[in-house]
Amino acid sequence: MLRAFVTGATGFIGSNLVRTLLDAGWEVAAFAGREGGRPGVGGEAIRCYPVPATTLECARIFEQSRPDVVFHLATLYLAEHSTGDIERLVAANILFGAQVAEAMAVCGIGRLVNAGTSWQSVPGPGYCPANLYAATKQAFEDLLAYYAHSGRIATLTLRLFDTYGPHDPRRKVVRMLAEAAVRGEPIDLSPGLQVIDLLHVRDAAAGFLQAGNLLVDQAPVAPDARVYYLPGDRMSLRDLAGRIQRIAGRPIAAHWGARPYRPREIMRPLSVAPDQRLPGWEQRVELDQGLAEILAAAR
Amino acid sequence: MLRAFVTGATGFIGSNLVRTLLDAGWEVAAFAGREGGRPGVGGEAIRCYPVPATTLECARIFEQSRPDVVFHLATLYLAEHSTGDIERLVAANILFGAQVAEAMAVCGIGRLVNAGTSWQSVPGPGYCPANLYAATKQAFEDLLAYYAHSGRIATLTLRLFDTYGPHDPRRKVVRMLAEAAVRGEPIDLSPGLQVIDLLHVRDAAAGFLQAGNLLVDQAPVAPDARVYYLPGDRMSLRDLAGRIQRIAGRPIAAHWGARPYRPREIMRPLSVAPDQRLPGWEQRVELDQGLAEILAAAR
Repeated sequence: MLRAFVTGATGFIGSNLVRTLLDAGWEVAAFAGREGGRPGVGGEAIRCYPVPATTLECARIFEQSRPDVVFHLATLYLAEHSTGDIERLVAANILFGAQVAEAMAVCGIGRLVNAGTSWQSVPGPGYCPANLYAATKQAFEDLLAYYAHSGRIATLTLRLFDTYGPHDPRRKVVRMLAEAAVRGEPIDLSPGLQVIDLLHVRDAAAGFLQAGNLLVDQAPVAPDARVYYLPGDRMSLRDLAGRIQRIAGRPIAAHWGARPYRPREIMRPLSVAPDQRLPGWEQRVELDQGLAEILAAAR
Repeated sequence: MLRAFVTGATGFIGSNLVRTLLDAGWEVAAFAGREGGRPGVGGEAIRCYPVPATTLECARIFEQSRPDVVFHLATLYLAEHSTGDIERLVAANILFGAQVAEAMAVCGIGRLVNAGTSWQSVPGPGYCPANLYAATKQAFEDLLAYYAHSGRIATLTLRLFDTYGPHDPRRKVVRMLAEAAVRGEPIDLSPGLQVIDLLHVRDAAAGFLQAGNLLVDQAPVAPDARVYYLPGDRMSLRDLAGRIQRIAGRPIAAHWGARPYRPREIMRPLSVAPDQRLPGWEQRVELDQGLAEILAAAR
């Protein structure tokens, strides 16, 4: 039986990953939420540890838990930051991950699946982060590279685009459009010509499971830091709204252009070459089926 | 009159930079040392501020000081880290720089010269850090890229190899060899076949001044993050010892191979292409002259 340790298990993708891992027969351990909350999905079947404050505390937990693979999904997502956010962005997205990686290295736990974001590189040549959140994700990958290149941890980063699914606590546009359709309330939106890439959270969780399996199948630990993407369905925000209206059978009172685009809004997601897709994984949940779930939950 | 703000001004390169800036007619402000120490060289002529604990405190200091260029040299150098060092490495080499950059952006201070290390990329393809210290430097450059690409700060990073010079408080090999020659005491060394790249600290400080001038001459702020190297003289550690013996006129009782190489020792420094050298800068202090200074100080 394989053992997983999931950080960020109380989050939207993390809680789905816990369910997916349990269904696949893994034993799962996780940190409790910072507010003391236990991972929601399958919470009773997993072992919970308090969030460690230091690397040494984290190492003591891993020493007890001895996972085969650590899935590092804990993150602080901020589409836009303000000046007071620097400390918590660095603490959540860089320091905490560094503590996890160092604790793994010192305990001889050699496999890490890391959650990145496609926003680390807006389309164009090379690294160019869309926002400071994405830059902190890139910064953490560069710390991971030290552990990978020195042969201490094999790392595999999955860079995600937008995810959606039922019970998403995040105020994401899919949920807001679905609620607007169901409730008939008006909604203010940007001009809506940006193309988004949408993946159902079950497919994202399946991607993390597959990434863990790839690391387990590869032995011994390879001194590299692999990066793959999990692309989904792409369409403009306007086309997405049209699709939700059609499935809901009700119009959305959308005020297109009532809000500006975000600063540095990504109008077209990064193209993903075939060899940049996670090997052995494919998208299974069709968008119409996924949107129907969201509409059902919004009713 | 141009105004500089120097972080790390109590350090070896920082204190030399303060002297160089004052000599070039700049007005200089700096943070006091964390232990309350004032920047040593020319300390009486510069304005000192307490080290800020938060981004907002840092912004208040920059608002008062209004520098034209910030020179960010503050760093925690660890050739090898241990598990308890993660928190202070991230705090010193990533968080503090992020606070400085965000404070600059919010104050509209648009030029940053940053100190990096050639160890961010050991020779070979792409980014591959020699140690966790180098990885934290790369991680900070990743954060800077956000500020640069979003057009808020023009950044120029100087990646340094080894520096040396009189009054170097660091336990670096040049000083240890010079002391061994002067005192006639035996010294345990690695096998000594690694090639090192040595630059006198006055040349390094001149490089930072030139980098500041390049940013000042370029207006308006360009949305890019430039990176240059400051290469010096290259020779094996054994050849360096031979050179020091010759200048000192005394033998060094070197036990070659009494110590192992460092983990991931860099045997040959990165080659620097002509367009990767800082434009408008050249090395002026010849190695023999620089070594004679070190020997004089060791006597």
